[in-house]
Amino acid sequence: MQTLSVSLGHRSYPIQIGSGIYHDASLLLAGLESQRVAVVTNNTIAEIYLHRLVSTLRASHLSVMEIILPDGEEFKNGATLNIIYDALMRERCDRSTTLIALGGGVIGDMCGYAAATFQRGIPFIQIPTTLLAQVDSSVGGKTGINHPLGKNMIGAFWQPKLVIADTDMLRTLPRRELSAGLAEVIKYGLIRDEAFFYWLEVNMERLTQCESEAIAYAVERSCRNKAEVVAADEFETAKDGGRALLNLGHTFGHAIETALGYGTWLHGEAVGTGMLMAARLSARLGWLADKDVSRISRLLQRAGLPLKAPNIGAEKYLDLMGHDKKNIGGQLRLVLLKSIGEAMTTKDVTTTDVLAAINDCSDD
Amino acid sequence: MQTLSVSLGHRSYPIQIGSGIYHDASLLLAGLESQRVAVVTNNTIAEIYLHRLVSTLRASHLSVMEIILPDGEEFKNGATLNIIYDALMRERCDRSTTLIALGGGVIGDMCGYAAATFQRGIPFIQIPTTLLAQVDSSVGGKTGINHPLGKNMIGAFWQPKLVIADTDMLRTLPRRELSAGLAEVIKYGLIRDEAFFYWLEVNMERLTQCESEAIAYAVERSCRNKAEVVAADEFETAKDGGRALLNLGHTFGHAIETALGYGTWLHGEAVGTGMLMAARLSARLGWLADKDVSRISRLLQRAGLPLKAPNIGAEKYLDLMGHDKKNIGGQLRLVLLKSIGEAMTTKDVTTTDVLAAINDCSDD
Repeated sequence: MQTLSVSLGHRSYPIQIGSGIYHDASLLLAGLESQRVAVVTNNTIAEIYLHRLVSTLRASHLSVMEIILPDGEEFKNGATLNIIYDALMRERCDRSTTLIALGGGVIGDMCGYAAATFQRGIPFIQIPTTLLAQVDSSVGGKTGINHPLGKNMIGAFWQPKLVIADTDMLRTLPRRELSAGLAEVIKYGLIRDEAFFYWLEVNMERLTQCESEAIAYAVERSCRNKAEVVAADEFETAKDGGRALLNLGHTFGHAIETALGYGTWLHGEAVGTGMLMAARLSARLGWLADKDVSRISRLLQRAGLPLKAPNIGAEKYLDLMGHDKKNIGGQLRLVLLKSIGEAMTTKDVTTTDVLAAINDCSDD
Repeated sequence: MQTLSVSLGHRSYPIQIGSGIYHDASLLLAGLESQRVAVVTNNTIAEIYLHRLVSTLRASHLSVMEIILPDGEEFKNGATLNIIYDALMRERCDRSTTLIALGGGVIGDMCGYAAATFQRGIPFIQIPTTLLAQVDSSVGGKTGINHPLGKNMIGAFWQPKLVIADTDMLRTLPRRELSAGLAEVIKYGLIRDEAFFYWLEVNMERLTQCESEAIAYAVERSCRNKAEVVAADEFETAKDGGRALLNLGHTFGHAIETALGYGTWLHGEAVGTGMLMAARLSARLGWLADKDVSRISRLLQRAGLPLKAPNIGAEKYLDLMGHDKKNIGGQLRLVLLKSIGEAMTTKDVTTTDVLAAINDCSDD
């Protein structure tokens, strides 16, 4: 087992990464400050993991509630959030209750947001069950829900007390979801870790085959990269660079997800194609060599990710990209690549170039 | 005009207190970091103050949106909050939009909570139009909405960039609302400022007659007291004392408000009677002299506050008090008085004593 520490002053917390650790009572107890916990999960995950987790907690004499939500990005909204609040209120939970998010990014974001806002903030622990959640939402403290007009538009920064990333859990993951997680893993190589990008080019098949050791390495290195970025810019206030770089591919990706309706494409799939759009746009600006765009495209393909977005229409793209919250002061700000391993933010792109990059990556 | 600084590190902000200052463009501009603002208010306040505020802002070349909510505590909920989110999304507001809360505590709490959670946090300014909001919600950063099972159960800590407390605004306030605000003013004397309590005994009629100078003094001294408490315990994490002392009368008060349905009694009215319950309970424990209970009762009466709560039944009180968020670990923790000017928290009270104090202050 490896421990990665996310350094955020008095909000620092450990990420434990290893095989078969989600039901390790001593690990769980180390992150708990209360005798009462509420496990928040969805119906799919509950069937596989909830019983064992709850048994472990109860065997440690904790009082455990189960809150089971419907599965899917389309339920990441205020109505589902109310299911959590209602259960906590009905059971008279107070500020000494700890929430445990058992699930992927949707569960982590919603449970984290419930923790951020229930009685103005209670502790929470994350047990991410997808690769995407392990390498993305386990670091950064971003929590929230979607608004009908945009993803993650309602939210808060709220740090967990502990993250347990169990690599065994990825074995039950549908192949598409593993690939979606790999998109974010590749992202860390692209934005700030060239050596890791090389490692991924060598080891991609070990990851798609879910080899424990390779997965643990990729999770640790991804989280370490993200933790370094977040530690320097916890609340996303840096004007250029900073956390904004983590959004490589996300402005395009959000447009794809929104246009198709949340949940049609997985977040990681949309980000993967979005990163390719950003790479092509970078090449158009003369920032990135064409051969590097090809390397990116090949690696995404080997990760099992789609390279072409559905053709939703240029105008619709621009419209939806305007609603993205990285859009500062009404102008489009994009994350582009100077090279593999170096990203930067820019507003200095023309609509023509943006549209051309989108068309390059869209189905005819 | 007086300026009180609330010291909270990089979240510090000024409270400007004075007569006719809400439409002072230079004051407003000093607190703004963006060219775009959304004024959040209710239909009652909008009629009196919105036009002048918006004109002032537009004359300063700002882009101004108006978001008008229904008036009343019964609308302090998720549905009304969505009106704010929907307007901000529809108008494509981003993180550089500043919200301005123009209204009483309900508007301040909801607008502040929308600011805390829209795109994970945007700036906001408060222009409190009631005495209660000027002396209570303008300091402390507590924002939130009600849950059907309890007040302020969903929320966040979020500090404004600026508060403008215009004493002239209190002249349009219904008498009951002025009295409700005075309950919180009296509270500061009770919990930590004996000299202020004396001042109130001497000057209460100047306040009920809304004399500008007296009001400004009471607002400044109340806010200063609250700011000192909050600076020492921003996130209400102190186990004993700290911010908890600000809740004198609130546990009883919340029970009254909830039992009657939000909005039947004003918050300050319920807190006033709740403080008397706390005083009587303190006397029962031998902490407080009977003559001090009488002084408290007389001052509340001169402030125009009810001394008797409706008889909602002892069991219902206990049940509703159990849902209060100051209730740590499932046991009832109350704020009581050692003397006038000194409060402390305790769990060391019997149900019998609590019920007796409630009965002393309830209608037959």
